[in-house]
Amino acid sequence: MSPIASTPRPPYYAVIFSSLRTPVDEGYDDTAQRMLELARQQPGFLGVESAREEVGITVSYWTDLESIKAWKAVAEHREAQSKGREKWYTAFRTRIALVERDYGL
Amino acid sequence: MSPIASTPRPPYYAVIFSSLRTPVDEGYDDTAQRMLELARQQPGFLGVESAREEVGITVSYWTDLESIKAWKAVAEHREAQSKGREKWYTAFRTRIALVERDYGL
Repeated sequence: MSPIASTPRPPYYAVIFSSLRTPVDEGYDDTAQRMLELARQQPGFLGVESAREEVGITVSYWTDLESIKAWKAVAEHREAQSKGREKWYTAFRTRIALVERDYGL
Repeated sequence: MSPIASTPRPPYYAVIFSSLRTPVDEGYDDTAQRMLELARQQPGFLGVESAREEVGITVSYWTDLESIKAWKAVAEHREAQSKGREKWYTAFRTRIALVERDYGL
């Protein structure tokens, strides 16, 4: 699988999640891995790209807003979101964006 | 400056640039640095976030499509884009997206 997501022709949605980590581990890697796995199983999921240096950026792609909303509400994901706020992130921003056009090489 | 961009209330635009590097250097780091510097000087520029592991993700934020178009056409940036296609990237995708909502911690 390419680390650049193979997305269909626009329009589709992107969720841009930018975060700064605390030094706390407590299951972070396992949960991050599990959330990727779980996201891939959701209706409307199109792909994901992720990298972390000073900042972590994870962009997931979705067919529509309803799918994003449903994914946000998945119980196991909600638990991870809580832990994220409490333990893993000193700061984060989630941006929900309509991809209008794309091009590439 | 926080590595998470301080953006205004939506709507605004995001340009998500996802790329895979070749092993070729030939001025890549200097050019990448210079492009960030130059982008910050453009009208309509709001901020930028960047990280690279297996994939590189740079998300820049802009007030509107016209600013993005103008930035794409800046001569020095066009030169960098050419070099990117020829030397630095084995693959990339640029996605232009309207940020409709955001929230964070």
